[in-house]
Amino acid sequence: MLRQISLGVDFGTNNVRALAVDCQSGEEIATSVADYRSGRGGIISDPSDPNVARQNPADYIQGFIESVSEVVRQIDPLEIVGVGIDTTASTPIPVDKTGTPLAMCERFQGRLDACAWLWKDHSAHQESEEITDKAKSAERPYLNRCGGSYSSEWFWSKILRCKRVAPDVFEAAESWLEQADFIPAWVTGNQIPGTFVRSVCASGHKAMAEVSWGGYPDEDFLGSIDPALVPLRRRLTEPHRTSDQAAGDVTRDVSRLTGLPEGIPVAVGIIDAHAGALGSGVRPGRLVKILGTSTCDIAVIPHLEHVPEIEGLSGIVPGSVIPGMLGLEAGQPAVGDLFGWFSRDIARLSLRDLEREAAKLRPGECGLIALDWNNGNRSVLANPLLSGLLVGQTLQTTSAEVYRALIESTAFGALTIVSRIEACGIEIDSISVCGGIAQKSPLIMQVYADICRRPLQLVSSDQACALGAAICGAMVGKAHRTIPLAQDAMAAKTGKTFPPDPTSTGIYQTLYDMYLSLHQAFGHGQLVDFGGFMGRLREIQQIARRTS
Amino acid sequence: MLRQISLGVDFGTNNVRALAVDCQSGEEIATSVADYRSGRGGIISDPSDPNVARQNPADYIQGFIESVSEVVRQIDPLEIVGVGIDTTASTPIPVDKTGTPLAMCERFQGRLDACAWLWKDHSAHQESEEITDKAKSAERPYLNRCGGSYSSEWFWSKILRCKRVAPDVFEAAESWLEQADFIPAWVTGNQIPGTFVRSVCASGHKAMAEVSWGGYPDEDFLGSIDPALVPLRRRLTEPHRTSDQAAGDVTRDVSRLTGLPEGIPVAVGIIDAHAGALGSGVRPGRLVKILGTSTCDIAVIPHLEHVPEIEGLSGIVPGSVIPGMLGLEAGQPAVGDLFGWFSRDIARLSLRDLEREAAKLRPGECGLIALDWNNGNRSVLANPLLSGLLVGQTLQTTSAEVYRALIESTAFGALTIVSRIEACGIEIDSISVCGGIAQKSPLIMQVYADICRRPLQLVSSDQACALGAAICGAMVGKAHRTIPLAQDAMAAKTGKTFPPDPTSTGIYQTLYDMYLSLHQAFGHGQLVDFGGFMGRLREIQQIARRTS
Repeated sequence: MLRQISLGVDFGTNNVRALAVDCQSGEEIATSVADYRSGRGGIISDPSDPNVARQNPADYIQGFIESVSEVVRQIDPLEIVGVGIDTTASTPIPVDKTGTPLAMCERFQGRLDACAWLWKDHSAHQESEEITDKAKSAERPYLNRCGGSYSSEWFWSKILRCKRVAPDVFEAAESWLEQADFIPAWVTGNQIPGTFVRSVCASGHKAMAEVSWGGYPDEDFLGSIDPALVPLRRRLTEPHRTSDQAAGDVTRDVSRLTGLPEGIPVAVGIIDAHAGALGSGVRPGRLVKILGTSTCDIAVIPHLEHVPEIEGLSGIVPGSVIPGMLGLEAGQPAVGDLFGWFSRDIARLSLRDLEREAAKLRPGECGLIALDWNNGNRSVLANPLLSGLLVGQTLQTTSAEVYRALIESTAFGALTIVSRIEACGIEIDSISVCGGIAQKSPLIMQVYADICRRPLQLVSSDQACALGAAICGAMVGKAHRTIPLAQDAMAAKTGKTFPPDPTSTGIYQTLYDMYLSLHQAFGHGQLVDFGGFMGRLREIQQIARRTS
Repeated sequence: MLRQISLGVDFGTNNVRALAVDCQSGEEIATSVADYRSGRGGIISDPSDPNVARQNPADYIQGFIESVSEVVRQIDPLEIVGVGIDTTASTPIPVDKTGTPLAMCERFQGRLDACAWLWKDHSAHQESEEITDKAKSAERPYLNRCGGSYSSEWFWSKILRCKRVAPDVFEAAESWLEQADFIPAWVTGNQIPGTFVRSVCASGHKAMAEVSWGGYPDEDFLGSIDPALVPLRRRLTEPHRTSDQAAGDVTRDVSRLTGLPEGIPVAVGIIDAHAGALGSGVRPGRLVKILGTSTCDIAVIPHLEHVPEIEGLSGIVPGSVIPGMLGLEAGQPAVGDLFGWFSRDIARLSLRDLEREAAKLRPGECGLIALDWNNGNRSVLANPLLSGLLVGQTLQTTSAEVYRALIESTAFGALTIVSRIEACGIEIDSISVCGGIAQKSPLIMQVYADICRRPLQLVSSDQACALGAAICGAMVGKAHRTIPLAQDAMAAKTGKTFPPDPTSTGIYQTLYDMYLSLHQAFGHGQLVDFGGFMGRLREIQQIARRTS
């Protein structure tokens, strides 16, 4: 009997990774990475507006061909049973009537607004506020699915922004595809608007779409934001499917370009974080945290009947992770980015040096508390205009102490999310963490375990997203009957576990209460007595020093 | 007719400077600096307690001899009419029955607690709290003279601390002399307890002494703190005099060691900051700011009848600066130290580089607000346990932006002091600034002018303290009849003036209101709505960027 291989193709922010996985053993057989060619690290920016972040869709095609053909070269193509694809989101791409990205049409060459609007593009912040305002009075619970506030990073904000700043691009766009829709559409030759398949995962909260209410928001609602959105909405007629289903089959053209066998099934796209959760073995009670430049938390609830309202959670989408379960998404917009910023732009010390010194400190010893909001707060405040705060510094404070306070602040932010989920009666027993930062930093893992008061499990694969995409590929290749069964065979094994240190949890509970009081005051405008705040930090520091 | 020269000897934290000044022209004729030899930069620390900062009194004697003899060598000694001395304070020194510092007695060699307790020693913070508590219910307005809180830096806190941690030193101490008392006592050979002269300036608020109520606090009050203080109090019988009066004459021994003519008069000691104010031409309406590692603000009120109660001012002492006037003292415990800390320990960028980049920014452009409390707040909160705070940082925030925010925070702190003085009906029309930082940084001068909304005058001498001491020397040498007349002839000329920039004052007024809300919340425990705080900072930043 032939071995069954699934190919997971993971479109990250800077490059594409293809990964061949044995569907039965879960063995990672071959992998290859291709960098994007445009801009800086694949990101095209606008010197006049730091909020702009775009990508060239041609890089996606080039990256797919390069990475996949290199992996196919290393294996027997006949063993491949399916292909799964994960991408960033929300990264909408304007396309013409043939489904060709406008950026690839001669007429719009060099036009930033015709490119893919990368997830981290925040130029549409004004538009997101307008949409949030309209959605507050809408009949459908649009905002309940996305934490009470529609983000400048998402589908409709970006389309509306495009209409305002580049009306010619907007007019020329027959449709807009999420990156997660575009790649499978291109691979399966099914990219003409009206004919391809849209991803439930990518269109869920980020485009306010839910299958049960007929997909995207209705014309009345969109028309109340801008009448120009109504005709576009009428053209968005494609079916929405979960990522265990097929978007189509590999075409002859793509087969020629990559070596993939023609006709093998390609799964509906899935958002990278959701794929990472799948690949990390997400299941009821086990939250998966993808720890990168930003952080994404994914959890699932094993029922669909009653969709809970969880204030401040940025995504609650039926079937977004596992069909038949409710997917929850939350996130922190700056984690690795926060550490990188401090290391590079403020302290001018390597992360390695900061980490070594910070690891010598005991909980509370830095005498500092920070708010982790340098890039705003996604969950649970849904406010991109918040900013960072650091309190407690003295003339003796070191860079390593500030660095440790920043790590702790992101862990406090993580606990705030977990607590919000649990407050709705959904238990989180353990946290699995994947991403490069987790692998590199035992300090971060331990601090998170101590602050979240839960064991933290390191996911042993550093390719969890591609692994999750491969699980989707295995599903459409009929190697497994259900996603949980596919996970049992293929998801990354759990690596080292970091149990909470009982000598740390108490002091961190005290510091978390102090973090929360800053959170309430600067996030919610709650009146808080900060009279003894700085003195308490000094006391805690002295106690920590005495016991060290 | 012989030229009249006065010698000012300025005992700083790290070294001694002697300066020969022409009493008529004010010309600075010769100068010499001698470093202290003990510890690090003259400061002896205790690895087990970062609050400890001591000095070796032998360094004072050595430093006097070295610096003075070098200056005397460069001039005609017969032209010297008097010597003035300024020192740090409160820096009390335990001495034996002969007035010899215990640190210089064989029995206590190497004992930190027998050394001079340098002004910046904070080991007595618990004792200062006890004294503050007792003083609150005392009959005399002790706390009204020192901002409502007795400092851990001051005379009685340190003596009480010594009694607790080194009872043998306390028992062996016949008396305690301020550094400002000890040096003139040694130079005039008049150091035996009971016989020498104490400085009104040095014993004023820092030792709760006022001439009108008989000097130091009474036995009942001190006894209520600790009965052991009563016999010590009984031995403190020396007269208190202002610094325009003589402590005695140069002895034959000191003449031999230094070349100073025997018998010339030596003025009563004066605190360095007060000397600096004298040397900078302090007068009613003109506040003098000595901008150094920390900052001292000195103002005078031209009457003595009614001593106002100014909450939060750390010193209100009749005659401390100019006899017949009321001297006001306030201060910020970290200014240059704050900039140095950030440059050296956090940003690893030279002050010069930070300054160059920060000078390119417009008011509000950094998007940050800081509290300048890394070393506590002296005026107007009198709370050494407060600490720093920084709010508004994003992933784009640069070190130079943080540096600028720190400069602005110290200027906001300076304005808080000026506003508190003015709220008592005492007008401050202009601010004269002396100290190395002021000379080096036009940026700091301009930010202070814009934030304080007053012209800032640079004092052209970088030796204002020594100049002030020389003014005292000229008084005892009878070169002038009054201190204001001596100032007219000898005080430093005013250098460059920085008028407030009217395009900056408006935005700084807005930012100052925001600073004050942090001040009220974290300093006073007032309930403040911080709900829109971070958003406002971003708005101000965007406005500033657009206009730049």
